[in-house]
Amino acid sequence: MIRSTATATTLMGLASLPGAGTAQVSQDAGAAGPQPGPRTRTIGIVLFQDFETLDVFGPVQMWGRLADHALGFVTADGQPVRSSQGSVIVPDWSFASAPQFDVLMVPGGQGTRPLVEDAALLGFVRQQDGSTSWTTSVCTGAAILARAGVLDGRNATSNKRAFDWVKRQSDKVTWHGRARWVVDGKYVTSSGVSAGTDMALALVERLYDRATADEAAHRAEYRWNDDPQNDPFAVADS
Amino acid sequence: MIRSTATATTLMGLASLPGAGTAQVSQDAGAAGPQPGPRTRTIGIVLFQDFETLDVFGPVQMWGRLADHALGFVTADGQPVRSSQGSVIVPDWSFASAPQFDVLMVPGGQGTRPLVEDAALLGFVRQQDGSTSWTTSVCTGAAILARAGVLDGRNATSNKRAFDWVKRQSDKVTWHGRARWVVDGKYVTSSGVSAGTDMALALVERLYDRATADEAAHRAEYRWNDDPQNDPFAVADS
Repeated sequence: MIRSTATATTLMGLASLPGAGTAQVSQDAGAAGPQPGPRTRTIGIVLFQDFETLDVFGPVQMWGRLADHALGFVTADGQPVRSSQGSVIVPDWSFASAPQFDVLMVPGGQGTRPLVEDAALLGFVRQQDGSTSWTTSVCTGAAILARAGVLDGRNATSNKRAFDWVKRQSDKVTWHGRARWVVDGKYVTSSGVSAGTDMALALVERLYDRATADEAAHRAEYRWNDDPQNDPFAVADS
Repeated sequence: MIRSTATATTLMGLASLPGAGTAQVSQDAGAAGPQPGPRTRTIGIVLFQDFETLDVFGPVQMWGRLADHALGFVTADGQPVRSSQGSVIVPDWSFASAPQFDVLMVPGGQGTRPLVEDAALLGFVRQQDGSTSWTTSVCTGAAILARAGVLDGRNATSNKRAFDWVKRQSDKVTWHGRARWVVDGKYVTSSGVSAGTDMALALVERLYDRATADEAAHRAEYRWNDDPQNDPFAVADS
């Protein structure tokens, strides 16, 4: 990942951080595990105030060391944001400076509640979605995708404890109450929080192969729930 | 959590972040879920360059909204660090400015390899451990605890893919090759990466009760592996 803006890192005094301001591949130099070559594709994760912590970092664990995908974070203004569980993350881009992503991911959390009305975010999602290979969400991030209109006519799922609220965001989406995650074309939406980790591995399988997904899970000593129909937190569809 | 230093937040220009520079409880105002009162106890998580992402953020998901525990991050110099999966986190404290923690957690990752020789970190761990209620680790974080000497004479576990390296760090620890996590007195060590999430819930049960732990898991749509003997990634003890 070549940073297309140095604004955040410069302001934050991160120039001395290994890997900062350079292609992300450099941070892996000398570390164990597969040594990636130049990463030609980009996974972009949207962050906002009060995002849900594990929505983001389960997928980051599984996506953060792929051979051909660099991973970065984008916030509306390129400034840090804080998760609902109190973690402050420094993003790589603002909406204005972000490159076209190959994979877009929108997490959920309390922060999504006002954002379903946020024209800048919805516009950014629509713009990115125009050229992504995969557009994904975890938890109530599906509400953002739905309000952006990119799930119109699609099958999708979301957090089961916020399912009624999510469904109200769009009646043009077929919402599934029993699904750990749903794939419809290039759209992959997951259920709540930890379901994002299972969805992330399913995407690794599609981007690479089963062995790569299994290895990512094993490295994390993670027992992948690899059946999208196995949803311990299912609710009725309507 | 009252921040005992404003250095990092001021340098980082985070003064405008909701919740920054104030008691952490304020960030939860208006959010769903239990509304905590003033949090009188502190969970401190040590971060360093190339920490493993999910080692930290699985527990953060489960510990970040407890009624009576504020959660914060500490780095040696109070400056941000980057995880092995490429996430830059802004800490709350340096070693010098950190308060006494009630719960100390040391994660693992590639970054632990040089740190088992790091006198400043080992000294900080020993100093904190002198007055913690619980001293915990995820993954190869146990190697740091072992080298600090605080696990001498104790039972412990660690990442099973780095188990031989961890065992070499101390022969005064009884290392368990089959354990999702191990509790010995106030010391709680977990196996690799995602095992930290299960350990974190076990600690919630001890700090509060089973219902609180179950609720934290359910909120995250997480199927808690609540049996510390159920270790799908077990290896021989020696």
